[in-house]
Amino acid sequence: MKSFNDLADFTRDEVLELLKLAVRLDREPEPEALRGKVLALLFLSPSLRTLASFQAAMTRLGGGSFVISPDMSIHGLETRPGIVMDGTAAEHIREAVPVIASYGDAIGIRAFAERKDLQKDLAETEFTALTELIDTPWINMESAMNHPCQNLADWKTLDDLSIPENGGKFVLSWAYHPKALPLAVPASTLYMAARRGMDVTILRPEGFELPAEIMRKAEHAANGAGGSIRETDERREAMEGAHVIYAKSWSSTRHYGDRLGDQGLRNELVDWCVDEPWFDTARDDCRFMHCLPVRRGVVVSEPVLDGPRSVVIHEARNRMLAQMAVLHQMMGSST
Amino acid sequence: MKSFNDLADFTRDEVLELLKLAVRLDREPEPEALRGKVLALLFLSPSLRTLASFQAAMTRLGGGSFVISPDMSIHGLETRPGIVMDGTAAEHIREAVPVIASYGDAIGIRAFAERKDLQKDLAETEFTALTELIDTPWINMESAMNHPCQNLADWKTLDDLSIPENGGKFVLSWAYHPKALPLAVPASTLYMAARRGMDVTILRPEGFELPAEIMRKAEHAANGAGGSIRETDERREAMEGAHVIYAKSWSSTRHYGDRLGDQGLRNELVDWCVDEPWFDTARDDCRFMHCLPVRRGVVVSEPVLDGPRSVVIHEARNRMLAQMAVLHQMMGSST
Amino acid sequence: MKSFNDLADFTRDEVLELLKLAVRLDREPEPEALRGKVLALLFLSPSLRTLASFQAAMTRLGGGSFVISPDMSIHGLETRPGIVMDGTAAEHIREAVPVIASYGDAIGIRAFAERKDLQKDLAETEFTALTELIDTPWINMESAMNHPCQNLADWKTLDDLSIPENGGKFVLSWAYHPKALPLAVPASTLYMAARRGMDVTILRPEGFELPAEIMRKAEHAANGAGGSIRETDERREAMEGAHVIYAKSWSSTRHYGDRLGDQGLRNELVDWCVDEPWFDTARDDCRFMHCLPVRRGVVVSEPVLDGPRSVVIHEARNRMLAQMAVLHQMMGSST
Repeated sequence: MKSFNDLADFTRDEVLELLKLAVRLDREPEPEALRGKVLALLFLSPSLRTLASFQAAMTRLGGGSFVISPDMSIHGLETRPGIVMDGTAAEHIREAVPVIASYGDAIGIRAFAERKDLQKDLAETEFTALTELIDTPWINMESAMNHPCQNLADWKTLDDLSIPENGGKFVLSWAYHPKALPLAVPASTLYMAARRGMDVTILRPEGFELPAEIMRKAEHAANGAGGSIRETDERREAMEGAHVIYAKSWSSTRHYGDRLGDQGLRNELVDWCVDEPWFDTARDDCRFMHCLPVRRGVVVSEPVLDGPRSVVIHEARNRMLAQMAVLHQMMGSST
Repeated sequence: MKSFNDLADFTRDEVLELLKLAVRLDREPEPEALRGKVLALLFLSPSLRTLASFQAAMTRLGGGSFVISPDMSIHGLETRPGIVMDGTAAEHIREAVPVIASYGDAIGIRAFAERKDLQKDLAETEFTALTELIDTPWINMESAMNHPCQNLADWKTLDDLSIPENGGKFVLSWAYHPKALPLAVPASTLYMAARRGMDVTILRPEGFELPAEIMRKAEHAANGAGGSIRETDERREAMEGAHVIYAKSWSSTRHYGDRLGDQGLRNELVDWCVDEPWFDTARDDCRFMHCLPVRRGVVVSEPVLDGPRSVVIHEARNRMLAQMAVLHQMMGSST
Repeated sequence: MKSFNDLADFTRDEVLELLKLAVRLDREPEPEALRGKVLALLFLSPSLRTLASFQAAMTRLGGGSFVISPDMSIHGLETRPGIVMDGTAAEHIREAVPVIASYGDAIGIRAFAERKDLQKDLAETEFTALTELIDTPWINMESAMNHPCQNLADWKTLDDLSIPENGGKFVLSWAYHPKALPLAVPASTLYMAARRGMDVTILRPEGFELPAEIMRKAEHAANGAGGSIRETDERREAMEGAHVIYAKSWSSTRHYGDRLGDQGLRNELVDWCVDEPWFDTARDDCRFMHCLPVRRGVVVSEPVLDGPRSVVIHEARNRMLAQMAVLHQMMGSST
């Protein structure tokens, strides 16, 4: 495996094999699998789960990792191409990335969307500029539109909960948040749920439609897997018979890169906080999923988040297991 | 061992077994003992020895660790219960703690006292709220009133120096410091010395008496172990025949949470800097102990700190060894 | 090996053995060599390559490391000797260094030059004050005048490129940079190149002569190894037949510690940016070396840095391999 960037790069059998491996590595530890192997971790954006779970994953497989992020006492990282570096930053990402990669057997990179130009973000222009600098196998730890480690972990969580693939009702719901957040999680979660063959409902207010490119990609996946996708802003209808609601806030795509425009729409939507009444029409055992971090009382009510519906900690732990499977396949000698 | 929180939770035999294991692991390394095991380290308060020694301890036992602290590029950590999270912090400790714990086979947590309400700090309200969030075995890396890793390390240091248990004269002395510091070290060190069976003298100015609850707990331990406890503000008398002086600054308990009141008392006490004349009535080989960090020329004079009485580096190294014993018992499969 | 501070402390055979070991460890990993061994890493100055490559090196050899730097949530580090610590910093380097060292089987320390007093920096007064505090084997990760890990890595790079020892033409060139940088890399690189037996030309503007002590030490090495050293400010002449140009900016030694004086000289020298025309008189395959970080468009033009002459990433990767050899000899039981 030369890269782990997008579930779309893998066949269904390959995904299922990763999921099986994740389950196995949880039950039967392999502390010798990656003996002496090094994972380089480059965080150009904040992280908690990814930061912790990748380090834990490498230790569990007998290897190790190191972390570089711009908040460390390094030399400042310039990212703009073609610039004369007579300012504060003493190092360019064009050197930093290949150098860091050269110390690892693989490298994980996190770089959130710029959120200025939607087409540029959809094209993963920034992220591709980074991965083109390296020959080392690499893992997308969240880019403008992808978060494949989250997706694989969430797929495993759905499996763990015995939520059916075909016929499973998955509601991807927008939620209120004071800031305009990236599209990586909603876009790639939509794809994951469609790819798994579920009936996916995107519940979102007007102005927060996912981009056409993202919708087309997911619809193609749904068609291939026996699932379906629909969009609505009607909460009761969306939640009808749902097995799971996956909440996430994201930027208005109508006002992408326009903070004030986004804020204008968003300010009217503070009632998009997932609360117990949302589940009125859902299955009794309907689950609440969220990739975390989550704002209590803003994105979701405390009773839902602390109640039996919530599987957010289970989901977060699956990040480690899913990543162990990826690392094992990427760096393991027998693969 | 499900938690390592307080020496009071362990029988004398259990403490002695940990001390024996610490000695053994120093002499006979076991780099396979915790192969593939992960220690999660959560620092909500500053650290140097604890930060370094736990990482070193896990490596020496063949496992690994990862560190999370709020100064990292994470999402901001909210700690207030029941709050609507529409401010800066994007993640609540109620998710962060169980998530971090879920990646480890054990978790170490450091969270200093709030120092607003003495009863709340004595009850360990804040710290208990954190540990109640997790099922993973956990280690107290310093809470409002406990610092058991320091205590175990100090017990070992006293053993290493052949200071007698019964009959050993241990002076716990307040010292000047520009800031009002927590009670965790003096309170738990008093308990440790009493529990070891020593004759303990608390040397402290008026207004800096340790809380009644702390005194009662220590007196109970002294009674059970054949030791004794007394308090005084008379330096010469306190140091009479002392085997060791353990210096530490702490807050005025009379003005707990009242910075100005504390400062008013404290400002008159700058001469509480441990210096060679303090040792006039002590044993010739009387030792100087301190948990570090220590302010030179403020808490202790340079000649004492740099002289042959000082065992502070030895003490600090024992942190690693004591913690190796705890980790070995907590995570080792054969124990 | 009790310390790795300066190539001058080693015989030629010892250096060659380290280089051979670096090559072997790249080809034949030894993930058991330093099982359970700990490297303490203390960064008093910023770092990227050193930070990442030492952690990777320890993992590859089966051990581990931990990092301490003042930007972490520690207690503030006082470095001034003899001070009464009633200010912000709660910990003195006199305790911190031996404590950190006590947790490792070896310690790496980075502390850049103060750049106030040239004689003091040449004497390594500050760095020696740190290493005198410890008994643990130690590695210089860059001090006022030394950067032996860089030197060993660069020697390996020259070997990898088959640049001849005797007869190899090595140009050490000053380059423009907006700030007055330390002398550690130019001083120790000059020594390395001389020690390798090459014909070294120092290309530098007036006012940027290297100190007489540095020149004498290098000349002595050149004499012993069959090489030579000369200085010039004539670019075409310096580059005549060159195998390699090693670019680096450094402080004006004429105005050492005098920021304005340095700036006055430096401001006239913005054309000292290594560019393709510099290579007119060089060998066709003349290489560009730099220790990184490097300012694009300031120290070197983008076409040179991104072109086939540049070996900066190869050089940076050799840092890890060179350090693996040092760590293996310093901590490996069988060596």
